[in-house]
Amino acid sequence: MSAPKKVVLAYSGGLDTSIILKWLQTEYGCEVVTFTADLGQGEELEPARKKAELLGIKPENIFIEDVREEFVRDFVFPMFRANAVYEGLYLLGTSIARPLISKRCVEIAHETGADAIAHGSTGKGNDQVRYELSAAALDPDLRVIAPWREWDLSSRTALIEFAEAHQIPIAKDKRGEAPFSVDANLLHTSSEGKVLEDPAEIAPDYVYQRTVNPEDAPNEPEFIEIAFEKGDAVAINGEAMSPATILTKLNELGGKHGIGRLDFVENRFVGMKSRGIYETPGGTVLLEAHRGIEQITLDAGAGHLKDSLMPRYAELIYNGFWFSPEREMLQAAIDKSQEHVSGTVRLKLYKGSATTVGRWSDQSLYSEEHVTFEDDAGAYDQKDAAGFIKLNALRLRLLAMRNRRLK
Amino acid sequence: MSAPKKVVLAYSGGLDTSIILKWLQTEYGCEVVTFTADLGQGEELEPARKKAELLGIKPENIFIEDVREEFVRDFVFPMFRANAVYEGLYLLGTSIARPLISKRCVEIAHETGADAIAHGSTGKGNDQVRYELSAAALDPDLRVIAPWREWDLSSRTALIEFAEAHQIPIAKDKRGEAPFSVDANLLHTSSEGKVLEDPAEIAPDYVYQRTVNPEDAPNEPEFIEIAFEKGDAVAINGEAMSPATILTKLNELGGKHGIGRLDFVENRFVGMKSRGIYETPGGTVLLEAHRGIEQITLDAGAGHLKDSLMPRYAELIYNGFWFSPEREMLQAAIDKSQEHVSGTVRLKLYKGSATTVGRWSDQSLYSEEHVTFEDDAGAYDQKDAAGFIKLNALRLRLLAMRNRRLK
Amino acid sequence: MSAPKKVVLAYSGGLDTSIILKWLQTEYGCEVVTFTADLGQGEELEPARKKAELLGIKPENIFIEDVREEFVRDFVFPMFRANAVYEGLYLLGTSIARPLISKRCVEIAHETGADAIAHGSTGKGNDQVRYELSAAALDPDLRVIAPWREWDLSSRTALIEFAEAHQIPIAKDKRGEAPFSVDANLLHTSSEGKVLEDPAEIAPDYVYQRTVNPEDAPNEPEFIEIAFEKGDAVAINGEAMSPATILTKLNELGGKHGIGRLDFVENRFVGMKSRGIYETPGGTVLLEAHRGIEQITLDAGAGHLKDSLMPRYAELIYNGFWFSPEREMLQAAIDKSQEHVSGTVRLKLYKGSATTVGRWSDQSLYSEEHVTFEDDAGAYDQKDAAGFIKLNALRLRLLAMRNRRLK
Amino acid sequence: MSAPKKVVLAYSGGLDTSIILKWLQTEYGCEVVTFTADLGQGEELEPARKKAELLGIKPENIFIEDVREEFVRDFVFPMFRANAVYEGLYLLGTSIARPLISKRCVEIAHETGADAIAHGSTGKGNDQVRYELSAAALDPDLRVIAPWREWDLSSRTALIEFAEAHQIPIAKDKRGEAPFSVDANLLHTSSEGKVLEDPAEIAPDYVYQRTVNPEDAPNEPEFIEIAFEKGDAVAINGEAMSPATILTKLNELGGKHGIGRLDFVENRFVGMKSRGIYETPGGTVLLEAHRGIEQITLDAGAGHLKDSLMPRYAELIYNGFWFSPEREMLQAAIDKSQEHVSGTVRLKLYKGSATTVGRWSDQSLYSEEHVTFEDDAGAYDQKDAAGFIKLNALRLRLLAMRNRRLK
Repeated sequence: MSAPKKVVLAYSGGLDTSIILKWLQTEYGCEVVTFTADLGQGEELEPARKKAELLGIKPENIFIEDVREEFVRDFVFPMFRANAVYEGLYLLGTSIARPLISKRCVEIAHETGADAIAHGSTGKGNDQVRYELSAAALDPDLRVIAPWREWDLSSRTALIEFAEAHQIPIAKDKRGEAPFSVDANLLHTSSEGKVLEDPAEIAPDYVYQRTVNPEDAPNEPEFIEIAFEKGDAVAINGEAMSPATILTKLNELGGKHGIGRLDFVENRFVGMKSRGIYETPGGTVLLEAHRGIEQITLDAGAGHLKDSLMPRYAELIYNGFWFSPEREMLQAAIDKSQEHVSGTVRLKLYKGSATTVGRWSDQSLYSEEHVTFEDDAGAYDQKDAAGFIKLNALRLRLLAMRNRRLK
Repeated sequence: MSAPKKVVLAYSGGLDTSIILKWLQTEYGCEVVTFTADLGQGEELEPARKKAELLGIKPENIFIEDVREEFVRDFVFPMFRANAVYEGLYLLGTSIARPLISKRCVEIAHETGADAIAHGSTGKGNDQVRYELSAAALDPDLRVIAPWREWDLSSRTALIEFAEAHQIPIAKDKRGEAPFSVDANLLHTSSEGKVLEDPAEIAPDYVYQRTVNPEDAPNEPEFIEIAFEKGDAVAINGEAMSPATILTKLNELGGKHGIGRLDFVENRFVGMKSRGIYETPGGTVLLEAHRGIEQITLDAGAGHLKDSLMPRYAELIYNGFWFSPEREMLQAAIDKSQEHVSGTVRLKLYKGSATTVGRWSDQSLYSEEHVTFEDDAGAYDQKDAAGFIKLNALRLRLLAMRNRRLK
Repeated sequence: MSAPKKVVLAYSGGLDTSIILKWLQTEYGCEVVTFTADLGQGEELEPARKKAELLGIKPENIFIEDVREEFVRDFVFPMFRANAVYEGLYLLGTSIARPLISKRCVEIAHETGADAIAHGSTGKGNDQVRYELSAAALDPDLRVIAPWREWDLSSRTALIEFAEAHQIPIAKDKRGEAPFSVDANLLHTSSEGKVLEDPAEIAPDYVYQRTVNPEDAPNEPEFIEIAFEKGDAVAINGEAMSPATILTKLNELGGKHGIGRLDFVENRFVGMKSRGIYETPGGTVLLEAHRGIEQITLDAGAGHLKDSLMPRYAELIYNGFWFSPEREMLQAAIDKSQEHVSGTVRLKLYKGSATTVGRWSDQSLYSEEHVTFEDDAGAYDQKDAAGFIKLNALRLRLLAMRNRRLK
Repeated sequence: MSAPKKVVLAYSGGLDTSIILKWLQTEYGCEVVTFTADLGQGEELEPARKKAELLGIKPENIFIEDVREEFVRDFVFPMFRANAVYEGLYLLGTSIARPLISKRCVEIAHETGADAIAHGSTGKGNDQVRYELSAAALDPDLRVIAPWREWDLSSRTALIEFAEAHQIPIAKDKRGEAPFSVDANLLHTSSEGKVLEDPAEIAPDYVYQRTVNPEDAPNEPEFIEIAFEKGDAVAINGEAMSPATILTKLNELGGKHGIGRLDFVENRFVGMKSRGIYETPGGTVLLEAHRGIEQITLDAGAGHLKDSLMPRYAELIYNGFWFSPEREMLQAAIDKSQEHVSGTVRLKLYKGSATTVGRWSDQSLYSEEHVTFEDDAGAYDQKDAAGFIKLNALRLRLLAMRNRRLK
C-alpha cells in the first residue's frame, strides 16, 4: 500500500500520541493534522497546541475543539435512555466517546483533504475497533492507521529512545512506566493495566481519580432532585442546565459522595478478559434517576421490551457498532419509548450510593386509585383476577393433564 | 360449583388467615388443614399451631414445617444463578417463595385427601397469580379458593366484626389498620400499601425491618469472602455452610451494614403499578458476589446469552410461572452455563454497599498472559486485530458505499 | 352496571350479528349503531344496510365503509415489513384486521355519542381480546359488550328460536349448523371448527375458498415481478398500484396457482390449542418477495436484529396488542430498517409455491466485486480472514485451555 | 512460525484438495495424513484412497470413514429440534457439517501425533471460520493451515500448472473452470459462484443436482407419515429407521417431488453477501413435519421461547460456533422442550411443496373438549375471558387515561 499523504491524528498532546505524530512524519513522510478534543477529561488543551507546533504541525492543521455538549447530548444521553450497562455493571464510559472522536477525525479529514486518520490505541483493546468501525461506517474509503499494530516500538525503552532521538519533550514522570493506564472523559475515568492486572488484588487507593473513597465522603446524606424530559435530564434541584453542565454537576455531586466506583473484569470484543477500575460518578447517579422516573412514567410492556433489548444495545456500543443500522434501529425503538418519560426524581447520595427515594410526574402512570389497599371505589374488580388467572393457567393445566395421562 | 370438603390453607397464624380459616369453615362447612411454613420470616411457628387448635383444627390437620433449606437450595439459588432482577432492580424475594408454598399445599392436599387449597392473597396483587398458576401446574384438578376475591368483608371493620363474632383472638395492635403491609422470608422483607402509597414521598424509617439505616451502619468497612461452586455459594470466609445457613449469615452481614434497601415502583402482572420497599440484605450481597465470580469464570458468549435471557426469566418468576416449561428451559440453559462458575470473591461491605474488590478461581478464564500491557511473549499477535476489524467493518463499508452512491 | 344507551355494533349483516343487534335492543333497550366494513372479505355490503334497516336501525346510524386501502396501507404493509409469522407459519390474517375494526367502532362511537361498542366474537377465541384491547387503548372509558359471553343462547337451536321470535330473516342454508366457521378479509380466509376439529384428519376440499387445489392449478409456472419502496410493494410487473390493489392482484395470482394454503394448529392467547385452515394467497407471495428484496438491500446486522424481534412482534399482533407501546417501539425499529428496502423481485408461481428466482436494486448491498470466485482486484484480502478467525477463536481457545487444565 | 511436521488434511480426493496435499508436502516438507469422510455427499470414497496413495500418503495415514449416522444423529437432528433456519430460509446444510469434519480431523491429529490440520476452504467464505473455530474449541494448541489464504496460486491456470508440475492427475472436465462450485452432504447440496453470481439472474436448470424441477415431478401427490420421538424422526410410514436412513429416505422422497430448492442471497459472517442455490429435499420435509408435531405436543410458552431463541441459535451455527458454550446452553434449553415432542405427522408431497395435513400423538396438548364450538360440558367458562381481557387491558387503559389527561 502506498504511503498516505496527509493524516488526521487523534492527538492528546501526551507523550504517546506525540511519538505517533513524529512516527507518522518519519515513517510515511506525510503531513499530519492533529485533532484534540475536550471531552471533559479535565486537562488543559492549549499545551497540546504548543506541543503540536513544536513538532512541526502547521497552525491550520491543528484542530482543538470543545465537544462536551455534543458528546453528552448526542451520545451519552441517547445511551442512558436505554439504561445501558455492559455485562451487568459497566456504564460504557470509554465506549461511548470513541465514535465521536472518530466522527470528528473523519470530518476533519474531509475538510483538510487528508487521505487517512490515525489513532493511538493498541492492538489488544476495544478502542481500535471502535475508532475503525466508526470510520468505516462514515467514510468507506478512508484509511485508518494504527501505529501500535504496525511499528516495532514494543517496549517502553524503545519508545523513550524514539522520543529522545526525535526531540520529543518527555515529562519527568513519564520516563518510567506508568503504574496503570488511564482514559477519561466527562462520563468516566477508567484505569487498567500493570498494578491492576491481578483481579484478585484490591485496587490501590491511588488509582481512583475523581471519586473520594466512600469512607472519606460526607457523613451526612445529600438529597437532590433531577428533572427529566423525554428521557433526558434537564435540571438539577430545579435549575435547568445544558446536557454537559448537568453531567458536570452530577460528577461533582457523585464524586464528593464516593459514588460510581466499579472494580470490574470484562470481556473485550477481541476475545480476552481484562480488569478495569471505572469511576462514573455522575453517570451512576443519572442511571439510578432515569430508572426512577421510568418507574412511574413507562408502561410495563414498553419497559420489559426495553429491558430485553438493552444487553444487545450495550454490546453494540461496547463493540464499536455505534454507527450501525442495528444500533440505530434499537435507538429508534428506545427513543419511541421515552416520549412520556418526564418528571422528577429525588435521590439520596451517601457514602458510595445513589438511591431513589421519591419520584413524581404529571405523566405518571401510577394510579393510587387502582393500587390502594383501601376502598378503590370500583376502579378495580378483584373478581376479574379469577378469570385472568384461570386463562393464564389453562395451558399449564392442559400440560399437567397430559403429563399425568402419560404416567 | 359444589362446596369443597377439605381445604388446605396456607396459614400464617395471623389475624387475616385466621379469619379465612373460620370463613372457610362457616362458608363451606368444610374441614380445614393448615400449612404453616418456616421460610425464614423470623416468627415463631408454635403460636400458629395453638391458634389453629383453638379454631378447631384437628392435630393431624396441622402441618408446620421448616422449609428454609429447600427454599434456598431449590428456589433461591437456581434463581441467583441467573442474576435475576425484575425491572432492573427487584430481587424477586416474594415471587420466589410462593411456588414453594403452593407446592407444599398441593402435596399436603394429596396426603390428606383434600379437594381444595386456599390462600390469603388479595385480588389486586401478584401473589394470588403465583399461588394459583403453581397449583394448576402441579395438579390440574385441584380447586383453589381465594377468599379475598369472594367474600364481602371489604373493610377493616367488617373483618374485625367477623373475627369478634367467631371468637378469633385479636391482638391489640391489630384492631386498627396496619400502617403498611409486610411479607417476609429468608430472602427479603417487603412492605407496601398505606403510608407507602405515594411514590413521591420518602418511606418513613420505621418501615425498614431487617436492615439498619446506612447512616447507622458501622463506620468501618468489613471485608468478606464468599466461595462458589457451580454457581452456588458454598462458604463464607472459608467456612462451608448449607444454603439456608449461608443466606442467613449474609442477611446478618448485609443487614448490619445497611445493604439491600430498595424503594421501588414496579409493574404488577395484573396491570397496575405499585410501590414497595424491599430489604434484601443477603441477596444483594450474593448477587454482587455471583457477578464477581462469573466475571472471571464465565465465557463472554455464555455471559451475553445469559444477560439477554435474564429479563424474560425474571419476568416469568415475577408473574408466577416458576412451574412452566419455558422457565425450565431457561433454567436448563442457565445451569449449563454454571458448570465452571466456581471460585472465591472478596467483597467490601460498607454503609449500604456491597462491592466486589477481588476474585480468584482455579477455573478462571482471565489470562494475564494475554491481556498484559507488558511483553506477552507472543500469546497475542496485535496484527490479527487488523484483519478482525477489517472483516467486522466490511458490511459497514458496503453500506456506506451504497448510501454514498445514492446521494 | 347500568344499561348502555347507544351501542356501536361491528355488524356483518349475517345471521349471528343480526341476532346480536336484536339482542342488544331487547336486552338493554338501547339504540344500536351498525358499522359494516369492506375489508375485502368479498361480500356485498348493501344487503347489510337493508337488513339493518329492516331491524329498525335509523339510516343515520348505519355506517358502511370501504376501508380496504387503510387496512393494507396502515396495518398489513407495516406488518409485512417485519416478515411477521406467528409460530413459524401463520401470516396473521385475522389478527391484523381486528384493530382496524375496533378503531373505527371507537371513532364512530365518538361521532355518534355512543357509550359502548359490541362485537360478535365468542369467549373462547382471540378476536374478543383483539377487539377489546384495541378499544381500551383508544378510549379507556368506552364499554365493550361481548354478547357471546353474556347471553344464554348457548345452542344453535336457541339462536334460531331467538331469530324466529324476533322476525330476523334466516337464509335457508343457515338453519342448520355450518360445517365450519369462516373469517375473511383482503389478506386471508380462515376456517375453523366442526369438521376441522380433529387435527389428525385432512381438511376436506370444500373448506378452501379462495385458492385452487395445487393439483388443479395451471401446469405452467407464471413469472411475476414485484417492485418495493421502503419495504412496501408498489408495483406488479411494472405497473404501479395502490396498496389494496396490489394485494387484490396478488390474491388473484396466488389463488390461481394454489398458493398460501396452511393447515395449522396454533396456541390461542386464551390458553388452548386450535386448528385452522388459512388461505393467504397474496400474503404468501408478498412475504416471499419481501424476503427476496431484503436479501440484497438489508444489512446483516439489521436483518438479524429484525429476525430476533419478529417472534415477539408477531405474538403481540396475534394477542391483540397492536395499539400498545411495545408494538409501536418494535415498529419504529422495523420501519427504520426499511429505508433502503427498495428494488424488484422476480418470482415463480407454480402449483402451491411462490419462489424468488431473481432480485435487483439500485440500493443493493450485494457486491459481486467482493464475493467473486474470480480475481477481485484487491477488494478483499483473504489474509484478513486469518486475524478475524483468530480473535473470534480466542475465547474458545482460552476455554479449551481452562477445561484441559482442570482435567 | 516453524513448519508443521505432520498435518491432517480434510481430503475429498478432488483436484483442489489433491493440490493442497502436494503443496503441504512441498511447502512444509511435512508428512500428510488424509481424512476423507462419507457425509452422504454421494461420491465413492475408494478413489480418494487410491489418489492419496498415488500422492505418496502412507496407508496408515489414510483415514476414510462413514460418518453419516454420527452426522445426522449428533448434528443434524439436534439442529432440527430447534427448527433452525438462517435468515428466514436457509437450512444450514453446509454449516452443520463442518464442525463434525473439524472434530474428526482434531481427533485424528491426536491419534497420529500430528501437529496441524489443514482444510481446503477459501479466505472469503464461512467454512474456514467453521473449521477453525471448531478446532480451536477442541484443541487450543493445534495449528490450522488454510492454504488458500497462504499460497500464491491465485488463478485456475496457476493451479493447473502446479498440478501438472507435480503429476497430480487432472480429470478432463476439471481443466477448465467449473461453471459453479458445489458442496454436498446428506442434508443438502449447495452451489455457488460463477454463473450464479448475478442475483438478478435465474439459476440455470443444470445447477440443480438432487431435486427434479417441480414441473417434472409426479402429477400425483404422495402422502407420507413421519413418526417422532423426543423431537427426532424415528420412522417413515410406520417403518423404524436409523437417523441417516431416515434422512436418506426423505431425500429420495423430497427430491422426487422437487422439494427443497432455495435460491438465496445470504450474509456471510465475513461481511459480504453471497448468492447460493441450495437443495435440501429431506431437510425441508423434516422441518415441516417437526413443526407439525410440535403444533400439538409443545406448549405455547415453550414454543414461543424456542421461536425467539432460534435466530440466535441458527446464527451461531452459521458462524461456526457449534462448539461454544452459548450454543450448548441453547441446546440444553431446546432439548428440554422436546421431551414430549413425540407423535406422527402426515404430509403431502407435491411439486415442490411438503405440507402437513394431519398430526396425532398420545402426548397431544390439543383439547377438542376445550376448543370445540359445540357444548363443552363446562370445560371452559367463557366468562373467565372477561376478567382475562380486563386485566390485560388495564395498563393500556391507564396509558390512554394518561395520554388523554395531557392533551
